[in-house]
Amino acid sequence: MAGMILNFVPLSGNNLAAEITGQIRHMLETGSLNRGDKLPSTRVLARDLDVARGTVVAALDTLIAEGFLVTRRGSGTYVSEACIPVAPQTAIRKQTPSWLFSIEPDLDQGAAGALNFQVCRPSLVAFPQNAWRRAAADAASRLPSADYGDPQGELELRIAIAAYLCRGRGLDVNADEIIITNGAVQAMHIISRLYLDRDSAVAFEDPGYPLARQTFGMTGASILPIPIDEDGLRVDQLPGDAKRVKFVYVTPSHQFPTGERLSLSRRQELLEWATQNDVLILEDDYDGEFRYDVAPLPPLAAMSTNGFVVYFGTFSKTMFPSLRIGFAVGPKQLIKEMAACRAVSDYQTNSLTQLALTSFIENGEFEKHVHRMRRLYAKKRKRLREVMNETNLAGDLTGTDSGLNALIRLRTDISATQISLRSRLRGIEVTPISRFAKGASVQDNALVLGYGALSEDEIEHGVSTLAAVIDEAI
Amino acid sequence: MAGMILNFVPLSGNNLAAEITGQIRHMLETGSLNRGDKLPSTRVLARDLDVARGTVVAALDTLIAEGFLVTRRGSGTYVSEACIPVAPQTAIRKQTPSWLFSIEPDLDQGAAGALNFQVCRPSLVAFPQNAWRRAAADAASRLPSADYGDPQGELELRIAIAAYLCRGRGLDVNADEIIITNGAVQAMHIISRLYLDRDSAVAFEDPGYPLARQTFGMTGASILPIPIDEDGLRVDQLPGDAKRVKFVYVTPSHQFPTGERLSLSRRQELLEWATQNDVLILEDDYDGEFRYDVAPLPPLAAMSTNGFVVYFGTFSKTMFPSLRIGFAVGPKQLIKEMAACRAVSDYQTNSLTQLALTSFIENGEFEKHVHRMRRLYAKKRKRLREVMNETNLAGDLTGTDSGLNALIRLRTDISATQISLRSRLRGIEVTPISRFAKGASVQDNALVLGYGALSEDEIEHGVSTLAAVIDEAI
Repeated sequence: MAGMILNFVPLSGNNLAAEITGQIRHMLETGSLNRGDKLPSTRVLARDLDVARGTVVAALDTLIAEGFLVTRRGSGTYVSEACIPVAPQTAIRKQTPSWLFSIEPDLDQGAAGALNFQVCRPSLVAFPQNAWRRAAADAASRLPSADYGDPQGELELRIAIAAYLCRGRGLDVNADEIIITNGAVQAMHIISRLYLDRDSAVAFEDPGYPLARQTFGMTGASILPIPIDEDGLRVDQLPGDAKRVKFVYVTPSHQFPTGERLSLSRRQELLEWATQNDVLILEDDYDGEFRYDVAPLPPLAAMSTNGFVVYFGTFSKTMFPSLRIGFAVGPKQLIKEMAACRAVSDYQTNSLTQLALTSFIENGEFEKHVHRMRRLYAKKRKRLREVMNETNLAGDLTGTDSGLNALIRLRTDISATQISLRSRLRGIEVTPISRFAKGASVQDNALVLGYGALSEDEIEHGVSTLAAVIDEAI
Repeated sequence: MAGMILNFVPLSGNNLAAEITGQIRHMLETGSLNRGDKLPSTRVLARDLDVARGTVVAALDTLIAEGFLVTRRGSGTYVSEACIPVAPQTAIRKQTPSWLFSIEPDLDQGAAGALNFQVCRPSLVAFPQNAWRRAAADAASRLPSADYGDPQGELELRIAIAAYLCRGRGLDVNADEIIITNGAVQAMHIISRLYLDRDSAVAFEDPGYPLARQTFGMTGASILPIPIDEDGLRVDQLPGDAKRVKFVYVTPSHQFPTGERLSLSRRQELLEWATQNDVLILEDDYDGEFRYDVAPLPPLAAMSTNGFVVYFGTFSKTMFPSLRIGFAVGPKQLIKEMAACRAVSDYQTNSLTQLALTSFIENGEFEKHVHRMRRLYAKKRKRLREVMNETNLAGDLTGTDSGLNALIRLRTDISATQISLRSRLRGIEVTPISRFAKGASVQDNALVLGYGALSEDEIEHGVSTLAAVIDEAI
């Protein structure tokens, strides 16, 4: 029996497999594909879509892993009987742009009710609710202006952040070198609009942070995956001819997702490479506040003297994600251009949250909270290590010098994706490192565990279960 | 004496005169042009920039009107001696993209200290500060989530807005047909990213709202200026062959900036045209809450049965601009796509403001405030009309059925730009209609007055002065 004919929107090119996955998901949601339907063969799909067969196979594998599709040996690929049908949507008249289908979810949400080692999620159990309520009430007590505010952000918040960066990160900057954005990702989105197009490229850590990679990729720019090792980004693997490269994106404090720190010598090499090649370094310091037993290393932005670094910070981990406050630090003229660009997208970050955060920082509540959380996360990390030892989990814990995520390296012959799928059946969500990888150099033999939002009991239960799953798989 | 050589960044094409203006402003700011410098002749500039001489003349005229440049008869154009030099900026290594120079300020800020009839500014004197503080404290009392929120917006706010739209605007929509954004402009920015590119076009009211026009124009799409008359958009002037046209942008409740309402028959014609030509109508209802002695007309979104309308609303005028909350209403599938696109730009609107606004609406405070302000604005409008009569101001007041702006139509032989410049010398800021125009069909013989944020005394003083200025000019 031949598979049915599928109507694909023409692919646009940046991430073909993800576009195919997205379009098939869309067909399932809108009812153009239904339970039990047989898909065309990968050969036919590859021909119709004019892509390599391997691309189609990769796309279908994702949907199989997600449970949307099933293969029947010798017969082909079918829509799973377990696939939940969604009510057909109102038809939309304009053709959906194909790049929209290639948008991946930022980080996997995991099954509802599962014990989820989700990455980059803070704990809110010790959040100073009363102090935050007072700060919000303070902010709302000010008479609002009839005018828009500064697209660069409230001056008093920029001053408070500059002072905090000096105390906390050794970064000596002025308020006019800072722009406040709705999370760091908006700052990356703005700088992408300024400098990227189809002809440019971004050197990007591999594995790396999916949301940043997509933000750059959506401009049409190519993403060059650069391998990392225990010292962070392999600077020696950056391209020799970097004419097209506009940015090199790095997470030096705590590489996402491996957790390695970029060593001091690598930092120097990277700054030299960027200067020589006229490339801007985008330094994403997404969780550098939570550093444990190690001495701090200076941010690249503090080491650079020539304006080749833009530093991104966020309050998503130190406060909470839906606060939507982040910032970028860079040369004054660049920040001014980013503010001009901002003024024609959403004008400014709302004043209520900016003023509430300013008051929260100025009252000392913010740093008190960060210190408290650092101790709490250090305890969780300790418990994670203990349980791994107690259960003889067959893997090595790394990447724990800072942040809210850790890495468990498995033996090289074990598939982390398989372990992740088996853990899911036991109610535990962990992410295989391949979820964050693009290039061929990343081996699928490590699991990423976000432990920030879990209690010590949950960590104990989760890691014990994981240890058992790994033992069964060996 | 020949003028100096100016180094322009190559022009990118969408609005050449504005790009030239912007680049020269930039040269003044960065010190590559200084007080007293002589500019090259318009002929030389036109040749070097490869543009029509008229384009250069238009660019220089803007800078002359702004006071940056002066002409000396028979000698040429010079940087004004009154031009305030700015300290040179740190050099930025990457070349500034040329489209950045074409960004115009949203609406003119006017000179500091002037009595400013700025458009679209609400009054905050009667803002219910205590109720707003309670709403913000309520919102901050909820324990924040460790997860991001819904990129489409908090469900409870969407439900509150749906109920309000039904009560206040006769628009019957579900929460899943609404997306919450950082002001309506962000919703326009997102829908532009979905559907516009260099090959598309947007039919746009002329004169019209500059920020929306720029938001669409920044994608590279062409803007087709469509004239308006006393019944609003001239639907008969829309292109017959509309293949490239993706959107038609209209402000039916209160045309920006003339204040006319789109008549019922025009509304029907527009809906027919859009359906026939497969064009999406973008209905910007930026101040429709403030309607005075006239019966309401249904929004296009309420008249349409086929999903050809996306409706944009904002809380910038009913609350205050730096709240940064707006929304779009459209077919469910389109709204879902906008949310997917949002998730890779700034993820979501911050939860604090969303929840505070929800509580403010649900407690009835929002509608109480809107009703109070409607009465207040009606009084100001009445005072405006009285003072015009008392001072025998030589012009006709129109566009006052709703909103916070009014139009004064002058005799056809009077230049509104001249009146505006002369008023500025007397400390009164009013905007000539040409500031909002792109096409040749708009005559520069009307002034736009925003009266919302001014007191009755200020309106009296401002209009009397304006009347005197007009009398002197006649």
